[in-house]
Amino acid sequence: MLLIQVGCELRYQVTVPTSFLFHVTAANTPHQAVQHEEVTVEPSREYNIAYLGAEDNRVFRLETMPCELTLRYQAKVSLNPSVDNPPQIPETDHPALPEDVLPYLNPSRYCESDRLAAFAMAEFGRLDRGYSRVAAICEWTYNHLKYISGSTNASTGACDVLILRSGVCRDYAHLAIAFCRALCIPARYVSGYAVALEPPDFHGFFEAYLGDHWYLFDATRLAPVEGLVRIGMGRDAADVPFAIIIGAATLIKKVVSAEELTEQIPRQGPSDESAVSTA
Amino acid sequence: MLLIQVGCELRYQVTVPTSFLFHVTAANTPHQAVQHEEVTVEPSREYNIAYLGAEDNRVFRLETMPCELTLRYQAKVSLNPSVDNPPQIPETDHPALPEDVLPYLNPSRYCESDRLAAFAMAEFGRLDRGYSRVAAICEWTYNHLKYISGSTNASTGACDVLILRSGVCRDYAHLAIAFCRALCIPARYVSGYAVALEPPDFHGFFEAYLGDHWYLFDATRLAPVEGLVRIGMGRDAADVPFAIIIGAATLIKKVVSAEELTEQIPRQGPSDESAVSTA
Amino acid sequence: MLLIQVGCELRYQVTVPTSFLFHVTAANTPHQAVQHEEVTVEPSREYNIAYLGAEDNRVFRLETMPCELTLRYQAKVSLNPSVDNPPQIPETDHPALPEDVLPYLNPSRYCESDRLAAFAMAEFGRLDRGYSRVAAICEWTYNHLKYISGSTNASTGACDVLILRSGVCRDYAHLAIAFCRALCIPARYVSGYAVALEPPDFHGFFEAYLGDHWYLFDATRLAPVEGLVRIGMGRDAADVPFAIIIGAATLIKKVVSAEELTEQIPRQGPSDESAVSTA
Amino acid sequence: MLLIQVGCELRYQVTVPTSFLFHVTAANTPHQAVQHEEVTVEPSREYNIAYLGAEDNRVFRLETMPCELTLRYQAKVSLNPSVDNPPQIPETDHPALPEDVLPYLNPSRYCESDRLAAFAMAEFGRLDRGYSRVAAICEWTYNHLKYISGSTNASTGACDVLILRSGVCRDYAHLAIAFCRALCIPARYVSGYAVALEPPDFHGFFEAYLGDHWYLFDATRLAPVEGLVRIGMGRDAADVPFAIIIGAATLIKKVVSAEELTEQIPRQGPSDESAVSTA
Repeated sequence: MLLIQVGCELRYQVTVPTSFLFHVTAANTPHQAVQHEEVTVEPSREYNIAYLGAEDNRVFRLETMPCELTLRYQAKVSLNPSVDNPPQIPETDHPALPEDVLPYLNPSRYCESDRLAAFAMAEFGRLDRGYSRVAAICEWTYNHLKYISGSTNASTGACDVLILRSGVCRDYAHLAIAFCRALCIPARYVSGYAVALEPPDFHGFFEAYLGDHWYLFDATRLAPVEGLVRIGMGRDAADVPFAIIIGAATLIKKVVSAEELTEQIPRQGPSDESAVSTA
Repeated sequence: MLLIQVGCELRYQVTVPTSFLFHVTAANTPHQAVQHEEVTVEPSREYNIAYLGAEDNRVFRLETMPCELTLRYQAKVSLNPSVDNPPQIPETDHPALPEDVLPYLNPSRYCESDRLAAFAMAEFGRLDRGYSRVAAICEWTYNHLKYISGSTNASTGACDVLILRSGVCRDYAHLAIAFCRALCIPARYVSGYAVALEPPDFHGFFEAYLGDHWYLFDATRLAPVEGLVRIGMGRDAADVPFAIIIGAATLIKKVVSAEELTEQIPRQGPSDESAVSTA
Repeated sequence: MLLIQVGCELRYQVTVPTSFLFHVTAANTPHQAVQHEEVTVEPSREYNIAYLGAEDNRVFRLETMPCELTLRYQAKVSLNPSVDNPPQIPETDHPALPEDVLPYLNPSRYCESDRLAAFAMAEFGRLDRGYSRVAAICEWTYNHLKYISGSTNASTGACDVLILRSGVCRDYAHLAIAFCRALCIPARYVSGYAVALEPPDFHGFFEAYLGDHWYLFDATRLAPVEGLVRIGMGRDAADVPFAIIIGAATLIKKVVSAEELTEQIPRQGPSDESAVSTA
Repeated sequence: MLLIQVGCELRYQVTVPTSFLFHVTAANTPHQAVQHEEVTVEPSREYNIAYLGAEDNRVFRLETMPCELTLRYQAKVSLNPSVDNPPQIPETDHPALPEDVLPYLNPSRYCESDRLAAFAMAEFGRLDRGYSRVAAICEWTYNHLKYISGSTNASTGACDVLILRSGVCRDYAHLAIAFCRALCIPARYVSGYAVALEPPDFHGFFEAYLGDHWYLFDATRLAPVEGLVRIGMGRDAADVPFAIIIGAATLIKKVVSAEELTEQIPRQGPSDESAVSTA
């Protein structure tokens, strides 16, 4: 079991009455448990906890009049991942996919898997089916994109990324997800905290459904998969931005942290030797 | 109460082992009830009923070896819509939106509401908030698009439609949905049967969440809203195509019908005098 | 006759051997004459004058090793525009269009007139043919876009602009050009200097071919058409950027100026009362 | 010297007064000469010959009232290509590129070389500069696309083709041209007739400027480069469609032929052993 301390501080200059949805809280799953968490909002505002979407993502909802608003979140999270042996993880035939998994085959705003069908088949269609094929998609994505902050924006989808050959974490995830879905492998976006991510920030990665588990993948190779702490899941980043803002607010401070307390996570790059599942 | 007989016959030439998901069954809601239904598959194949997505859309799942496959569906459906007075239907402020409604504000594959924010604000931002604003979006969509079969395809999204100024029912719905979401009005795609649609076919329309109901809208004006029989709902058409096919199958026959048995639905065009809710 | 003093200073940090093409020199046409001009390059570099494209745009070509390179250009330009009465300016039927004008009906990188055919016909197809129709296109463009610096980038085309409803001078010109071409009115992009432009900068506007002249239009309304000093023309901005850089150079200073010496240009906004031609 | 008999018959149902521009005539260049040609228009219509664009493409212009219009064109063309040895053909440094070649570095409607800069650099940036690099681009294009009639349409550009991984001759040319320009290799689209093309049709291919010649390339490998008979050149296919139609006309017959009279052209696929120039 790993213990990870995650947290963030978000400060906004709010200029009109504004409603916020924050996707910042660590999720509770059979493999991830929030041991302790603290939330503070300054100036004091009531907030509600809501559970959104098919994924029941936990969010803070709050509204405020114009002010300088600060949200601080800290949580101690235990991770007890299921770790499997990649060569033994098959793809699941479509007829055997569970009902709740099927929607993650559909194209979404940033993962235009419908348009990428021929591309995915040409690049990955002849590979052996299974965990290794998703690993190959991640490797291809890693090798074909450059991680360049600011090279993409909030309207950039997987097709754009493929043309531009650059992006940030969410773009890597979107492209890999789109390829998976085009190959009939269910895949979904995961937002989270990441141990050893440099510079520290919220992170975006993805899960593919293989065998009967959702396995974690991170095509950016920027942080060990073992240290990913889940916030929420969705079709793509449209479902789990760290903040949805209805009104007008300018982000003036963002500090994100994720520290392992147990010092067990390897610091070297990702390995294909173990398949990690925390859903 | 209305009684509507709906049905379809779909025939495919299946050339490899293929898995199907059919979104063709009438939904059961507090306002829509399937009184009787019959399904036949020829040659005989077992099928399962599954419930997909946050919307619990009922689908038939079946798999088959190569064959000429025919699915016939017939249902007698009673509709007991809630009918409200448009001037009394407000928009709902974001903080008051129910949890399960919030995801329908997110952009989706065919409804790029994020890109259309400025467009929607410029065209509709100053209109009175409420049912009438969604009606205005429908009118705008109707007036600015031409219904041209074949003018768009399966990868066409709302932004494309806006440029091309033409489309079919799903495109009208996508554009109107995208405008609604850009204005912070939750909106979702609905697939269904439609009484008096010419030529008869499956239909695509949408719902917007106003007050505390999902109200039906059809920007195409091709069929009376009172005669719409819901199959399923989703972010957009990606979630509820009449058939999802994993394998290889060519559609060689499609017959769709929707006949009112009670003869109460007005045959004239749509009116803004009543707001219909069947969700 | 007007006398206008135009000039620019461009400074680059050049980090590898780099080749430049500068579109900054005032053009000579039957209605625009360079009375006097001075060019300095620091550190001293030889430069050639080249004439590019069907439009014979005059450019400076130079190459340099890594350095801090400064180009200064100053010119005194006389303008003797042909001014016509808009109601008397017809559109030209396609068979009567001169050979050299026909290519300006083709779609180009940033003016996708092929995709905008239905849009243009729906908005402008029923208007009276003639100068007034192009003026209406400019008015529509002005009314539907917001001028927002930084809202678009070097890959933004007319279709994007139409969706985003914002842009800068080149975007306004691209959209108006695309509409003109879609209506079979030849149109081309013009880069230049502009008297009374705030803040001073290079400017982008366009010409439409009507009757037997190229008439100037500026859908941004940011500067009087009478004070536009032509640098070059092209299919769109791709043909006449102020600098084409092959290598690596960062712009670290840009100062642009255009001052009328004769004080005859009205400072109020554009009027539709006179049609100006300087080609 | 090769002798090639080319020809076409185009028949249109013309329903309103319509103006045509036909790009069907074989060009005259230092290496390609029209020995004899015949044009017939039925019913009889006067036509003019015009020379369009920087490339002086020869076109037939004619106008007609509603009718069934048939254009027949036959020409005997001699080809006397300059053939060079690929390993000896260098790329030309930007400062040494002739003025009239420079515009073919600019992005165009269907060749968005600006967006593809990173892609081209990643795939081809480290290859040796010269003829072999353009040959490598053609090979890459050939290997990555599938030739599928009807998979693209008149608004499909190089970026779309790259995503879709399929297209027709013009799409292959557009993608290869875009890559060349992104690497600072001037490239232009060429329309023409092609010996041994199956099924017979107009063909689209391209030229890249290397050393001091325009060399022919055909990424489709559908016909021997030696048997390509040039009609016209342009930025991309937007400049040289076989027919530009202003009005309304439906193509009801199209027959295209290209027969070598001299029987010297090898029928096997393209070879990289000789570089052919006919411009």
